Amino acid sequence: ARSYSITLLPGDGIGPEVVAVAKDVLSAAGSKEGVELRYKEMLMGGAALDAAGVPLPDETLAAARASDAILLGAIGGYKWDNNEKHLKPETGLLNIRAGLGVFANLRPATVLPQLVDASTLKREVAEGVDIMVVRELTGGIYFGKPRGFGTNDKGEETGFNTEIYSVAEIDRIARVAFEVARKRGGKLCSVDKANVLEASMLWRKRVTAIASEFPDVELSHMYVDNAAMQLVRNPKQFDTIVTNNIFGDILSDEASMITGSIGMLPSASVGESGPGLFEPIHGSAPDIAGQDKANPLATILSAAMLLKYGLGVESAAKRIEVAVTETLDNGFRTGDIYSPGTTLVGCKRMGEEVLKAL
Amino acid sequence: ARSYSITLLPGDGIGPEVVAVAKDVLSAAGSKEGVELRYKEMLMGGAALDAAGVPLPDETLAAARASDAILLGAIGGYKWDNNEKHLKPETGLLNIRAGLGVFANLRPATVLPQLVDASTLKREVAEGVDIMVVRELTGGIYFGKPRGFGTNDKGEETGFNTEIYSVAEIDRIARVAFEVARKRGGKLCSVDKANVLEASMLWRKRVTAIASEFPDVELSHMYVDNAAMQLVRNPKQFDTIVTNNIFGDILSDEASMITGSIGMLPSASVGESGPGLFEPIHGSAPDIAGQDKANPLATILSAAMLLKYGLGVESAAKRIEVAVTETLDNGFRTGDIYSPGTTLVGCKRMGEEVLKAL
Ligand SMILES: CC(C)[C@H](C(=O)O)[C@@H](O)C(=O)O
Ligand SMILES: CC(C)[C@H](C(=O)O)[C@@H](O)C(=O)O
Repeated sequence: ARSYSITLLPGDGIGPEVVAVAKDVLSAAGSKEGVELRYKEMLMGGAALDAAGVPLPDETLAAARASDAILLGAIGGYKWDNNEKHLKPETGLLNIRAGLGVFANLRPATVLPQLVDASTLKREVAEGVDIMVVRELTGGIYFGKPRGFGTNDKGEETGFNTEIYSVAEIDRIARVAFEVARKRGGKLCSVDKANVLEASMLWRKRVTAIASEFPDVELSHMYVDNAAMQLVRNPKQFDTIVTNNIFGDILSDEASMITGSIGMLPSASVGESGPGLFEPIHGSAPDIAGQDKANPLATILSAAMLLKYGLGVESAAKRIEVAVTETLDNGFRTGDIYSPGTTLVGCKRMGEEVLKAL
Repeated sequence: ARSYSITLLPGDGIGPEVVAVAKDVLSAAGSKEGVELRYKEMLMGGAALDAAGVPLPDETLAAARASDAILLGAIGGYKWDNNEKHLKPETGLLNIRAGLGVFANLRPATVLPQLVDASTLKREVAEGVDIMVVRELTGGIYFGKPRGFGTNDKGEETGFNTEIYSVAEIDRIARVAFEVARKRGGKLCSVDKANVLEASMLWRKRVTAIASEFPDVELSHMYVDNAAMQLVRNPKQFDTIVTNNIFGDILSDEASMITGSIGMLPSASVGESGPGLFEPIHGSAPDIAGQDKANPLATILSAAMLLKYGLGVESAAKRIEVAVTETLDNGFRTGDIYSPGTTLVGCKRMGEEVLKAL
């Protein structure tokens, strides 16, 4: 039997609950395809800060690197919100992304037919939305140097960051995005602010150049302000979107909210080689942590992405996706997606129902 | 009679049509309050590029500076899209903002009761939305230095920009925003990315400090990715939003699309002293230019903001706002806001109806 090692990073808030449930589903789906999964649980985020004084202990990064794929719950919470930068849970997340070199973040925003009414958008606008945002994850203003605090020529204190992209960084994320678009609807929209920013001008130039390697994919360009509008006006016009780190942060969250089911959406972060990082796009939701109220489906679907993009076991991924659909068809809903006439369940029970459907 | 000089910058695409109509409304509203307006029309954007080879001729900036307020139509078009940066219409816009020092951009996003069904959001979500986005307009990554193209230590070409804010820049925009919030619902939400960016950390620190001068305003903070979501999830939670230049560009466009009536929304850009710049938030819409199809109401309402924020003639501003409401109540609609049962009119006719209602 094939055997893989998985690093589990439960993290903070609802993270441990959703990861525990998703792990069982992952194991069950794997074993049905003859894949054995071994787990190692490590500390990250606030949990690591409390236990080890840093948001990403060296052992955690080392274990993650040595494994075949990583499943992350969520990180952060009020408790650490006012920490200095190097002691923020978020810094642990940024450091593991950089440490693993997972430069391509895939964030699907799909409106499931069972949940179309959960969207705040009108049914006819939301129905059938199926967008994949490919966000550059290890470059741009998140990591650019110089950064910090200084003094300007008037003697005033300043805070500053650098948005910077190299040709190599743009080319590699563009290629991932074209590959993704090719396997989906064949349409790629590159989002930038090339009418103002030099970093975006180079972005647009390189994405346009890489397009010649993918003659079967239709490329368009859109300014980020317009993209933020078009996602609200007519999200169905989009198939695959590729954009930089900060624009991707904003637009992928906007797109996911448009689906109305943010508790349902997974993400995959992958690099050139080495293990990928898989996590729900929702946060740690400290307000409902430990109450068995969290929706584990985003993490379960992240486990499916782990099987597909991380381990290449598409058949097992498909099993999970089908089981989730069936569970929804059977009427089971956590609080965040509940509507009258469906069956309200907690986090654990939702996991059990998915296991049954498997 | 009080007398003021107004610089008109019709610009490109539908700009000339909507400015011509708005000018007549502006004059009529002014004269009813004993205010005489004199106009000087100047070149800007693509029109200036074609006629004078630069997007903002020196005479235009000088005339604008010497006047009491500026009314701008729209700039840009496919024709100049591939121009080098210093020859882009957009560069003219950025230069006039900087040249006038109009650091505070006020962008209302209001859902008018007559147009609530134009929103793609469900009626119960859109109804009653009334947000004012206060965007910092002359700093941040739009203007920060260093910027340009270079080579990194691997010898690869790069494009880069600098996001930078000084204490003075943050303090003055924060004060404007608190003043605005005080006159509205008394709630200010400051949007940043302080969990990642140093420029945002300083932003949050200073906005928090300035809050002590406005004990009657309730301040909250939100990360930009969350704000992009919350605008879709529940826009009614927002009263006044203050944010930096690039986040303001994105979020104000998103907010305006949520109202469903982007052809209706005005904006005001004001500085410490000197003339303000007033413009619709929509673009130059080259596809419908010259066809008498454009919606002039955003420019007409920008003229109202000009009277209120630019000249301090609130009574005349109010007249325009009431006339616009009445015109909508009378059922007149341009194509962009048309719905069955209303009367479809062109740009000029819409202007005439507003004049009648005045
Ligand atoms: C927590 C934060 C640093 C992170 C980001 O901005 O990348 C999050 O918003 C995300 O999108 O994964
Ligand atoms: C045209 C462009 C430079 C401008 C901006 O980004 O500021 C526009 O989008 C706006 O919001 O007024």
